[in-house]
Formats: sequence, C-alpha cells, structure tokens
Amino acid sequence: MRPILAEVVTIGDEILYGQITDTNTQWMSTQLDKIGIKTVRKSSVGDQEDKILQILEEAESRADIILLTGGLGPTKDDITKKTLCKYFDDELIINEDALGFITEFFTKRGRPMTELNRQQAMVPKKCIYLANKTGTAPGMWFEKSMGSGKGKIFVSMPGVPHEMKYLMANEVIPRLKKYFETPIIYHKMIRTIGVGESFLAEKIEKWEDSLPAHIKLAYLPSFGQVRLRLTGMGENEETLKQEVQNEVDKVLPMIQSFVFGYDDDDLEVALGKLLKSKNKTISAAESCTGGFISHLFTKVPGSSAYFMGSVVSYANAVKINVLGVKPETIENHGAVSEETVMQMAEGVRALMKTDFAIATSGVAGPDGGTPEKPVGTLWIACAMEGRTIARKVQMSNQRETNINYGSVVAMNLLRKMLNGDYES
Amino acid sequence: MRPILAEVVTIGDEILYGQITDTNTQWMSTQLDKIGIKTVRKSSVGDQEDKILQILEEAESRADIILLTGGLGPTKDDITKKTLCKYFDDELIINEDALGFITEFFTKRGRPMTELNRQQAMVPKKCIYLANKTGTAPGMWFEKSMGSGKGKIFVSMPGVPHEMKYLMANEVIPRLKKYFETPIIYHKMIRTIGVGESFLAEKIEKWEDSLPAHIKLAYLPSFGQVRLRLTGMGENEETLKQEVQNEVDKVLPMIQSFVFGYDDDDLEVALGKLLKSKNKTISAAESCTGGFISHLFTKVPGSSAYFMGSVVSYANAVKINVLGVKPETIENHGAVSEETVMQMAEGVRALMKTDFAIATSGVAGPDGGTPEKPVGTLWIACAMEGRTIARKVQMSNQRETNINYGSVVAMNLLRKMLNGDYES
Repeated sequence: MRPILAEVVTIGDEILYGQITDTNTQWMSTQLDKIGIKTVRKSSVGDQEDKILQILEEAESRADIILLTGGLGPTKDDITKKTLCKYFDDELIINEDALGFITEFFTKRGRPMTELNRQQAMVPKKCIYLANKTGTAPGMWFEKSMGSGKGKIFVSMPGVPHEMKYLMANEVIPRLKKYFETPIIYHKMIRTIGVGESFLAEKIEKWEDSLPAHIKLAYLPSFGQVRLRLTGMGENEETLKQEVQNEVDKVLPMIQSFVFGYDDDDLEVALGKLLKSKNKTISAAESCTGGFISHLFTKVPGSSAYFMGSVVSYANAVKINVLGVKPETIENHGAVSEETVMQMAEGVRALMKTDFAIATSGVAGPDGGTPEKPVGTLWIACAMEGRTIARKVQMSNQRETNINYGSVVAMNLLRKMLNGDYES
Repeated sequence: MRPILAEVVTIGDEILYGQITDTNTQWMSTQLDKIGIKTVRKSSVGDQEDKILQILEEAESRADIILLTGGLGPTKDDITKKTLCKYFDDELIINEDALGFITEFFTKRGRPMTELNRQQAMVPKKCIYLANKTGTAPGMWFEKSMGSGKGKIFVSMPGVPHEMKYLMANEVIPRLKKYFETPIIYHKMIRTIGVGESFLAEKIEKWEDSLPAHIKLAYLPSFGQVRLRLTGMGENEETLKQEVQNEVDKVLPMIQSFVFGYDDDDLEVALGKLLKSKNKTISAAESCTGGFISHLFTKVPGSSAYFMGSVVSYANAVKINVLGVKPETIENHGAVSEETVMQMAEGVRALMKTDFAIATSGVAGPDGGTPEKPVGTLWIACAMEGRTIARKVQMSNQRETNINYGSVVAMNLLRKMLNGDYES
C-alpha cells in the first residue's frame, strides 16, 4: 500500500517576515503522523494571491492532502478565502450555520458584532464548512473533483493555534481517517539526558547498524538532552510494536543511566511520575533560572500533587530574608557559590516542608560575569533529608539558553537523587 | 531596483515528523528582512537526497539566495553535505581550518574526539568554509558559477539555533550585504494589549484606508495582544522613517490606552522600562501561572534592577505560611477568590519589600473546575502603597493558553496602575 502524503502550508506575511513563530505546522504534522500520513513538505508563503495559487498547484502535484492555515482573519490583509475561490473556480456565499455561530459567539461575550465579523461567515460554495466552535474563522474542506488532482483533499483552517487544533481534532483527522486507507506507522522515543549525540552514537553504533530495514533511528538533540526516535513501518500494528520494543530492550542496557523517559514524556513529566511513584514532594529556590523550573513543573496537569511551590530569589535580600541564606555566606563566597546554593535548597525545603528541593544560582548573562565567575557559571543543588548535593556547571553566554539549560541540569540532579544515585 | 528574494529551507525528518519546533526560519527571515532581503518562501523537507535536490532546484528557480539549515550532524541520518556535493557536482575534502578548530573544541572541553567528530571537518571543495566558532558543524557558502542559476547564493548552516545564529551574524549577513545591492525596508510595530483585532480594525479603518501605497499595515494577534506592523519600502531611509513615523503619530490618538510599547518590546520589556523610568520595584505571588510571570520578567537582561523575586504558592499551605494569607479566607472564599488573591499580592509585597506586587490565582485546568468556578476562572491582583486592585477574568479550558494569557492580563493590570489608571 503506497503511503498517503501530505503537505502543510502556512499563509501569512507575518510568518515570512518572521514576526510570529509558526507552531502550527509542527503540531499538525505530529497529528498526521499518528494516523500514518507522511508529511513530505512544509511551506510558508505570504498573503499574495499569485504566491498562494503557485504553492497550491505545487503541493497538489506532490501530495494527496494539502492542509492550509492562516489568512482567514477579518482584516483586509487576509485573502485566503478569495484565493481558494479562484483556485477552485468558486464563489463566496454566506453559510447560515457559520453566521448563527458567530452571532451567538458575540452575544455570549456581550461584545458588539461588526460587519467584518459577519463576513467571517462567508465560505466558498463548493467546500464543506467545518464548524469552528472556538473562534469566528471557518474551517473549509475541499475535494478536488476533476483534473490531475482529482480526489485530492484541501483543508483551510485559521492560523490561531487553539482554533486550528480544535478543527484538526474534531473535524479534519476524523474525516481523513474515513477518506484514506492509511498504513501503520509506529514511533517509540527513548529520552536521554546528560550525554552528547556523538558519544551516544558511538555507544550504540553496532546496535544501530543491526536494525532491520523497516525500523529507522533518528537522533533529536536539545538542551542537554538527546531523543532517540525509532520509527517502524508495517502492516500489522501488534507485530510492529513488538519488533520496535525488542530493539528498545536491546539498546537500553547500553544507555540505561541516561534514560529518563519515553515518547512524549518531557523531563518535567517524567519527574512528576517519579515523584508520584515514590510519593515525594518538591520545591525550588530559583535565582538565575528565574521561575522557569517552577513553570516547567507547573505546566504539567496535576503537578499540584507533588509540586508545593518555589521562591524566585532574584535579590540577595530575598535569599537572606525568605530563604534564610546567611548574609556572611553571600559576603564571603558570593551569591553564585556552592555554599549559597546549598543554603538556598535547604532553606526552601524547610520553608515549604517538602521531601526534596532544588536550587539554582548562576550568571545567566549577557552581563554580570567576572574573571573568577564568567557569564554561564552555574551552581545547582538538591536537598533531601540528611543530604544536600551541589554541582558546578559551565554554560554558554546566551541568557535564554542558560535559563533553559540550567533548569534542565538542576532537574536532572533531582532525578538522579530520586533514583538513589548520589555520585554521578 | 528589483527586490532581492530569499528562500529559507530547513532539512530534517525531525521537523517534518513534528518532533522539534523550527525556530530558525523565523529568526533568519527577520535578519534578512532587516537588510532589505525579502523572504518569499519557507520550506522544510526530510533527510532524503531526492527531496533535498528537488527543493534546491525549485528554490533556485524562484530566489536569489537559498539559506539551508540542518542535516549537518555527525550521525548517519544527516546527509546535507553529501547532497550538496551532488547538486554542485563536487566532492568532500578535509578543511584544515575546520579540523584545527574541532580538535581545539574537544581539547578545551577535555572530551574525547571521535572519528565522527573528525568527519565534521569535511566540506565540499567548491564552497567557501564559514568558520563556526560555537560548534563542530561547518558553515558553507556556495556561489552558483554556471547555468540558469548563475550568481545565485546557497548557504548551508547547522540546525542548532545558536550555531546558526552565530554564523548568520558573523559570516552570512556581512557577506550578503557585500554581494547584493539591497533596497530600503523599514518596519515600525505598535504593540497593543486588551483589545480585539476586529475592534481595533474598525477604530482605525479610515486611517488604514488613507495609508500611502508604499506603506503597508498588518495585524499580528497573540494572547490578548495585537501588534500593528507598518512596513514602508523606498529609496531613502530617513524619508521613509519620517513617513512611517507620521502615520504612527496619526493613529496613536485613536488607540493610545491600549498601546504598551513598540517594535521588539514585549510586554515584559516595556514593563521593565516603565518600572525603571519610575524607579519602582516589583514582586509576584503566582498560583495558577506557576512561575511564568517570574520567567517573563527575568528573561529580560538587567531585570534584577526592578524584579526582586516571587513566591510560587501552589499549595495553600504556602499561601498561608509564606504569603500570610488568612486560613479562614481560603476556607470561606476558596483559593481562587478576590479576597485570597488580594492577600497574596499584599503578602508578597510586604515579604519582598517592593513598590508593586502582582498575584494570580485561578483554575488553569484541564481539571479542577466547579460549577461556580469553572476551568479558566482567574483572579488577578496588583498591590501598591495604600491600594490593591483585583480583577476577575474568564479564560479558556486549555492549560498552556491560560498560563500565558493569565500572566499577560496580570502584567497589564500592573501596567495600568503604573500609569495611574485605576479604573479600566
């Protein structure tokens, strides 16, 4: 069975000019991937008719499914609907369902409905209207009925991420599953931390070379982590899962201590599961990471079960008055020091009455470095009953990278101590 | 003078499969835009030779500059260098500068250098090697010397963001400025908050219709904010700046109260400037936003001048013991209530001895809602000397959106109070 191919196209000058981040294409291709539809190309073009028409033609020549987002706003610079009419030789008409929903949308919110809002209810005559219950822009489903592209599917959705996501989950994915007969694709991701890509690659080279042809390996590095993605393609889901799992079982012993989780389990999710399984609670004292560790923990649904809270102690006065760091410690050793970060961890652990506590203190940059403590110098600590461990890490000179990386290494120290590893 | 056109191509299965977020293309097109080079298309393809060759041909047919990132890692799944050799009928040779740097790179870090690392020093014979001082993958600059694409520029860079950024800033942009004669493009962005796109559009419709042909307006909405981007194109930079500024001066009176900043000034940056200019300090007590407000403040370089710290009070015990919220207040009104959030703001303000303090308490979701307090219910407060103001906001049922949006509305309340607006 030949694979079903998709192209994802985002429309909007704001994306080309780099004024907004496109997170849609990533999410969309992940969803397609889950139902065995292979994304073969992602593209972004501006709000110009000729550019949009050109990419529609190209995409149609390469893929079975073309998913479009963007250019459906109420304002003058949004021309996707008009352009789709031109491409499908169609005309815009008021869709009553859409109009009804939009009217209700504004009544509910007690906001005035403008003529621009009303026009949001206009869609091409030939398309199937996909009801967007999260906003005023419509979803549109086209089936090419003639020509070389006969049978190909075009879907147009708003660029606002949560509106696109609603339409994908509730309308597009279910329809695609009905419309196409899709092959079986199975991914298994092994998540590692604290080891470099090349080092990992050499450790598992023999295993990698021995992988069967229908199982592929990819390395996905990011901020002190490397994800190993195994992708299997086949006919029978159960067999495929088993084959991939066998490969996982083979490679695991070679890299065990670096593995913190699988698949979509980000470090904060894996840590949450670990804390829950051990029935332990956590708090944090953050200086250079400035609340990012707390954000990582709390963005996980249900984190209130184990994350009690944290103190972002940016000012030294807060380190002293709230966390109980000794003034003379900061005086003698500085805020970025082993002694200070250990007292921060112990202080917040006592304050929040948790089993574990992690702390960070470093020079995030770009300024504030000294010869002895250059930008990127980071001290992390983790405290538990009867034991506090601190580590020094040298990071880069890029503030945002340091905040991310610093958070990850501190959380990895917690992971090791939760697992009873107090040495590495 | 005809505009110089660029295409940005990212290479990697991990992007197509949606396993990583592509932030490179956004950043690259912003940099190109600043020197008057127009990005006309962005594309992502997988690590397959035929797909890469196809997109190189297509891009060459449309653009003057083709910027590539990705596929330069040391592992087997990275094939960009080999493919470029095929496209330019070239061969890989060891580049001595590259080899020297890579050797030093590993010596410095006291890490073993593997054969895979050594191969990182191989580049196509015909390209100009661009020294990457931040990693082991090379930058490569090609000038097409014959055929229809004669004179066109191809640049290949690593996909790791900070390595790509280093090469763009230090090698690629300077060379492009020398190689091409570029037109003048000038952007001015007006940043608004607390007003919808359609509402804004109707408020300024007459002004928008009166804009001269060489000045374009775009609406860029995101999380309770709308950015108005004016883009001017012309010959003389000073004249252009003045013309755009005149339009800004015309529209400002219509939308003044919603405007918090300009250009790249995100809300946290604008607030930082405002706090500095008024010589005020700030702290935060975060429940449902879980540290995200603190992160927004502290990701701004120099924020330690006005941001003293915060308490993430996830557990009620922390609200009571650290922030001094009265137990009976939580008992009688609940943690998500006007009374609690006001005591949180006043408590952290006293604890951290700051001029202002903001607090959030809400139901971020996806669970935890009740009939009276459904998911998305948010209370925010801002406290100053002699005055505390609280507001209730209804958000969505999406946790991540609520954390973002909740942070923004709380920071906007601070903005208003800093500006002496205690009513709206």
